[in-house]
Amino acid sequence: MKKEGQEKKKEKETEKAKEKKETGITAEKDEFSEWFSQLMLKADLADYTDVSGCIVLKPAAYAIWEMIVDECDKRFKKLGIRNCYFPLLIPEKLLSMEKEHVEGFSPEVAWVTEAGNTKLSERLAIRPTSETIMYPSYSKWIRSWRDLPLKLNQWNNAVRWEFSHPVPFLRTREFLWNEGHTVYASEKDAIKERGEILNVYGEVCEDFMALYGVVGKKTEKEKFAGAVFSEKIHYIMPNGRAIEGPCFHHDGQKFSKAYDIKFLDRDGKENYAWQNTFAISTRMLGVMFAVHSDSKGLILPPKIAPTQIIIIPIYNNENKNEIIKKAKEIGEQLSDFRVEIDLKEDSVGSKFYNSELKGISARVEIGPKDIAKKQVVVVRRDTNKKYEIKTEELKKELSEILEDMQKSLFKKSEEMFKEKIERAETIDKLIKIIENKKVGIAPLCKKRECEDMVKFKTKGAKALFISEEKIKPKTQCIICKEPADDYVYAGKSY
Amino acid sequence: MKKEGQEKKKEKETEKAKEKKETGITAEKDEFSEWFSQLMLKADLADYTDVSGCIVLKPAAYAIWEMIVDECDKRFKKLGIRNCYFPLLIPEKLLSMEKEHVEGFSPEVAWVTEAGNTKLSERLAIRPTSETIMYPSYSKWIRSWRDLPLKLNQWNNAVRWEFSHPVPFLRTREFLWNEGHTVYASEKDAIKERGEILNVYGEVCEDFMALYGVVGKKTEKEKFAGAVFSEKIHYIMPNGRAIEGPCFHHDGQKFSKAYDIKFLDRDGKENYAWQNTFAISTRMLGVMFAVHSDSKGLILPPKIAPTQIIIIPIYNNENKNEIIKKAKEIGEQLSDFRVEIDLKEDSVGSKFYNSELKGISARVEIGPKDIAKKQVVVVRRDTNKKYEIKTEELKKELSEILEDMQKSLFKKSEEMFKEKIERAETIDKLIKIIENKKVGIAPLCKKRECEDMVKFKTKGAKALFISEEKIKPKTQCIICKEPADDYVYAGKSY
Repeated sequence: MKKEGQEKKKEKETEKAKEKKETGITAEKDEFSEWFSQLMLKADLADYTDVSGCIVLKPAAYAIWEMIVDECDKRFKKLGIRNCYFPLLIPEKLLSMEKEHVEGFSPEVAWVTEAGNTKLSERLAIRPTSETIMYPSYSKWIRSWRDLPLKLNQWNNAVRWEFSHPVPFLRTREFLWNEGHTVYASEKDAIKERGEILNVYGEVCEDFMALYGVVGKKTEKEKFAGAVFSEKIHYIMPNGRAIEGPCFHHDGQKFSKAYDIKFLDRDGKENYAWQNTFAISTRMLGVMFAVHSDSKGLILPPKIAPTQIIIIPIYNNENKNEIIKKAKEIGEQLSDFRVEIDLKEDSVGSKFYNSELKGISARVEIGPKDIAKKQVVVVRRDTNKKYEIKTEELKKELSEILEDMQKSLFKKSEEMFKEKIERAETIDKLIKIIENKKVGIAPLCKKRECEDMVKFKTKGAKALFISEEKIKPKTQCIICKEPADDYVYAGKSY
Repeated sequence: MKKEGQEKKKEKETEKAKEKKETGITAEKDEFSEWFSQLMLKADLADYTDVSGCIVLKPAAYAIWEMIVDECDKRFKKLGIRNCYFPLLIPEKLLSMEKEHVEGFSPEVAWVTEAGNTKLSERLAIRPTSETIMYPSYSKWIRSWRDLPLKLNQWNNAVRWEFSHPVPFLRTREFLWNEGHTVYASEKDAIKERGEILNVYGEVCEDFMALYGVVGKKTEKEKFAGAVFSEKIHYIMPNGRAIEGPCFHHDGQKFSKAYDIKFLDRDGKENYAWQNTFAISTRMLGVMFAVHSDSKGLILPPKIAPTQIIIIPIYNNENKNEIIKKAKEIGEQLSDFRVEIDLKEDSVGSKFYNSELKGISARVEIGPKDIAKKQVVVVRRDTNKKYEIKTEELKKELSEILEDMQKSLFKKSEEMFKEKIERAETIDKLIKIIENKKVGIAPLCKKRECEDMVKFKTKGAKALFISEEKIKPKTQCIICKEPADDYVYAGKSY
């Protein structure tokens, strides 16, 4: 009996190896770019298309995006933000009304110039972002303090035709996102929204996507085209490159002055309004896939996994009916989870293998021996740990396993972030940190030329964001040696 | 006391008249086009933009679209249809692969020809529909019968740059919709989906939007570019023009042959797959607004009204606190509904007026006398009927009122549809019917030239769809007098 078992085991292993060869990821995670591309294709998350720089979001990835949208959206609605929809196409003259904004975006605008067989009299931009199509309407709609705050949001697609190297999810020419555009009667109220919005994004990214990130203001050079200040949640990828997540921009009165958004206040005085914008995009899917996954495939935090549990019945011709029946019973018992039963005409090895590749949080194996012992075998995706669990305790135990997995992924993501950060007191140290594929924290003054010099000396690392840590007295800027103003995170980035 | 009451009433009426002059709809419903445009603007549903033919969907309209999406989407998911997202932009060479399809759409395609300062080497179409970007991927993904059925759906935006007169909601150059694209291993399975999908749409349009429509196949001339047969749910607008609602197209193997979507069946034989597509769009919002509303403003079926009930407290300086407190208590009691309490600094007349303009299903008025009598006054939007209801019975009674309103709107919509239909045994009768702004049912043969002649003789009425009623023997085509093949609905349309 034992021998038969061993042979079976061997058979399974061979089967698994065969499957892996055909469909598995052949790169290790430290060959990041190859690994990430294989992960995307083989875990069925996305695919390339004939449009350069644009991908298909396949159901496995899109279902996660739907959850992110849902979680953000219900929090936005609680804040009194309402959804709407503005046109995709923006006449060129509107796009040009705020000078910094148009300079920031025009190099990457996709232009519609023809319709049917007709040449259009004015070019239409595909929205890279919607300020310039929304704010002329805002100018018309807002008359008095009674119309404020106006808090609108859109979930839509945007196009930025970047010519640098596109990367699936992280840098695509079309992406899905929300764009919140709010208008307030006072600067104070507008700035107060910063915390509300960053909390929404923070909750969704931490509690659901299990991603550790750090909020930081952009430097003058790097902030959003048209903003007074830009704050983003920053993440670090496994290859040491930084990436910007959700953002909040306080635009002050820049756009309200450019687009004539005025209101009569309670005293009958006319004022320009104060504005904010904020966004989260499908890029975050890529950050999450990259941070958590491994060389076997996708790892997803259970709270956001479209399938949390897969039940795999292990049977032969004689006990097939009995075991499938039991698997279905267990499926019923676990119906509070997002659960599937794998009844495909496929080998067990291949089913195990697939559950790992596709990032299902835990798999429940049930065979004749398990039934006899009134138990099942559970394998947790992130640790590969096996548990033998009594059927009657399965629901409770699985809850605990998934909860632990959720926490543990967040913790790992925090550890990874912190491992990739080093302090640099000199430019030479910073150069070394960057060469080692990490991110440095360096004291810098506010001069644009010092920021430019950092980029030059490190061969492309930029000032990512300003640390909230106050600068110690007498600290020198690593470039000009004059007093530094801030500790700045500097690194290569997407 | 009585006199004071009367004066107050008069004051309120004057107030109301004043408000109406400023913000109300000044056209009657039979001046349809003016009325509809005012309804859209004044009920805050949408607004024109600087992009010709494109509108802003304001929160009041967008919230309804979200409900339509939700209701359809959960039904799609039960059918095993999964959501995904394909690129907005389609390279010209892909668009051209199915001949009928490209001929149908190319006159109205918006083309991207430039990005930043660069002229693109190939024009990119903004999707008028996504067959041509999706099916090359389908061709790659589908290998064997195991991969079928493939049932994908997208909720997205599409652009068709029509040059004829745009009408908000009904005929806009950009619209939001779902596009389902399914692939089957057999013709039989593919055609079976027809009923499933039309049921989903039928349920949402009837049970939620309270719209009576008739399912009908398009004639050869009018069917979707590339389809084997097209079936749509057809509606009639208050001005007698027909309009197409949700649609289901069976494409047979037309696209699978053009885009090489083949699979190995269980016998190892290679076959072309069978395909369907289906859609519902934001146009349906316009149909619903137009069919139910009146000269006072919007009327919405309660099941789809973002606000079902508005509570309007009527107070003076002395009893303000007490009455607002009571209003809030009632708000709590009605929390199973989508309920709002109107606490704006505004006159009662204006609040009443606004609740009518914005299509809130029922308003609950509560003043000092009502509190004394432990009752409230309820006014139902569609009938204007007033009810005095004991507070303790309010929840139950309101449920019944809203349910009755939902049914009654559907019934009215059915009656309107049927009133606008007349049978035409001759072309002269059909011409009269069309002149009277109605839709005719006329016997026709299948010849293209007879269909063309109907359009010519009636000055633009087209064959809308084929009735399911079987033709009686010896019935003549109203044009050529040869045996007719079908009863065909004919009328002007959007």
